[in-house]
Amino acid sequence: MTHPAIILVNPQMGENIGAVARAMMNFGLRDLRIVAPRDGWPNPAADAMAAHGLPIIESAKLYATTREAVADLHYVYASTARDRRIHKPQLSPREASQDGVSRARAGQNIGILYGPERSGLENEDIALAHAILTIPTDEKYSSLNIAQSAVVIAYEWWVAGLTGDGSSDSQEANHGAKKDSLPATGEQVDLFFGHLEAALDRTNFFKLDEKKPHMWRNLRSTFLRAELSEQEVHTLRGMLSALEKGDKRPK
Amino acid sequence: MTHPAIILVNPQMGENIGAVARAMMNFGLRDLRIVAPRDGWPNPAADAMAAHGLPIIESAKLYATTREAVADLHYVYASTARDRRIHKPQLSPREASQDGVSRARAGQNIGILYGPERSGLENEDIALAHAILTIPTDEKYSSLNIAQSAVVIAYEWWVAGLTGDGSSDSQEANHGAKKDSLPATGEQVDLFFGHLEAALDRTNFFKLDEKKPHMWRNLRSTFLRAELSEQEVHTLRGMLSALEKGDKRPK
Repeated sequence: MTHPAIILVNPQMGENIGAVARAMMNFGLRDLRIVAPRDGWPNPAADAMAAHGLPIIESAKLYATTREAVADLHYVYASTARDRRIHKPQLSPREASQDGVSRARAGQNIGILYGPERSGLENEDIALAHAILTIPTDEKYSSLNIAQSAVVIAYEWWVAGLTGDGSSDSQEANHGAKKDSLPATGEQVDLFFGHLEAALDRTNFFKLDEKKPHMWRNLRSTFLRAELSEQEVHTLRGMLSALEKGDKRPK
Repeated sequence: MTHPAIILVNPQMGENIGAVARAMMNFGLRDLRIVAPRDGWPNPAADAMAAHGLPIIESAKLYATTREAVADLHYVYASTARDRRIHKPQLSPREASQDGVSRARAGQNIGILYGPERSGLENEDIALAHAILTIPTDEKYSSLNIAQSAVVIAYEWWVAGLTGDGSSDSQEANHGAKKDSLPATGEQVDLFFGHLEAALDRTNFFKLDEKKPHMWRNLRSTFLRAELSEQEVHTLRGMLSALEKGDKRPK
C-alpha cells in the first residue's frame, strides 16, 4: 500500500463524496474515511456520483472525530491553502506524493485530510497533521472543489508510485523521517497528548482558560514536527509519569 | 500565452462544460472552444457550474466543425485512450505539458481536443491532431470524466509553466518541432489537404469509395506527423498544381 487514506472531515454534499470515490478508483486509492458527514451515512447522492468508485463508498469507514480517523496513521497531510502562520512543512502535490510514497514504502500509514466544502479544515484538524498540502493555482482563482482537488492529488500519487519517484533513497523528499524505527501512530501520539494535557492541567500550566487552546495547539505542533518514534513516545510518557509523581528523593 | 486552447467536440452535458471552465480558470487557461454542443449554446447549466470560470464560458467560441476550431492552431493534442493503431506520438500529461509549453514559447498556438462524454473523439477528429494525450490510470478503472481530465491536464500545464520545464532548450520534450520557421496552422494544412483530396479524386486514386476514408486518414496522418512549415505547405501545393497541369513538355 503506497497510497494514502483520504479523510473527508464533515463533508457536506454527497455528490462530492461520490466524485472523490470515483477519482480514487481511477488512481489506485481505496481507503476512504468519513468524519461526521453533514447528511448522514450512507448517502444515496454519494452512491449515484461514485460510478465505478461505488465499492469505495461501500467500504468507507465512518468516524465521529478526526482524531479517531487518523488514529492508525503515521503521517498526515492536511489539504488546505498555504498559511505562513502554520509551522509545518508546506508541500505541493508533487512533493507530497514523492514524500508520501517514500514513507509508505518504509512502512508508514499515510493519509490526507480534507475539510468541509464551504469552510475548509478547522485549526483543530490541521493540528493533527504533520504537513500542509497545497495545489498551486492562479492566485486570483484558487478555489478548487474537493473533487477536483482529490483528482489532482490522487493523480500525482499514482504517477509517483509508477515512476518510482520517492523511493526510499530519495533523501530530499523525505523530511527527516527516521528509517530505523517506525514513527508513532496518531493513536500513540494522541495517548501521549492526553497524558500530557491532564498532567499540565493539574499543574495549572495553562493558567488562563481562554489562552489554553492556542498554547496547547502550538505545543502539540512542536511534538508532531518531531515525528516521534514509538520508542520516543514511550520514553516521553515514562518521563511524564515520573514528573507527575513529584520529588521522590529520600528526604 | 503558454497555455493551450481547450476544444470540446460535441459536448453533451452543460454541467461538464461549466466544470471544465472552472478548472481552466484555476490554472490560467482562458481559450475555450466548443464544437456543435448537443444542447445548443449558450447553456444555462454550463453557466451554473462555472463558478469563477463564468468569464471563460462567456467568451467561449462556438464552431460548427472541429476542423474550423483548430484552423489557427499549430499543434493539437487529442485527449483519448492509448491506441497502438494510431501512428502519432502518445504522451502523458506531464510530457505533453512540457512539450506544449516549449512549443508555445516558440510561438506556436496549441490546443487540446476532447470528445463527447459518452463516446470520446471520433477517428475523424483524432486525425486532426498531431499527438495523443492520455492520463495514466489504474487500467481496470480508466474512465475519467471530462471535467476530471481537464483538471489534471490544466494543472500539469500550470506546473510546467511555473517550473520552466519545457523551456525552448528542452530537446527531449520537443518532438522534432522546427524552430527556425513556424509550423503551418491547421487552416493552412487543411487547404493543402483539400487541394490534395480534390486532385486525387480527379485521378481516381482512391478507386473504391468504401476504402477512401481509411486511406485518406492515413495519408493525412503522414503529412501531420511531418509538422510541415508554412513554406513546406506552400511548396507542396505548388508541386500539386504542377502535377495537376499534367505533362506540359513541348511535344
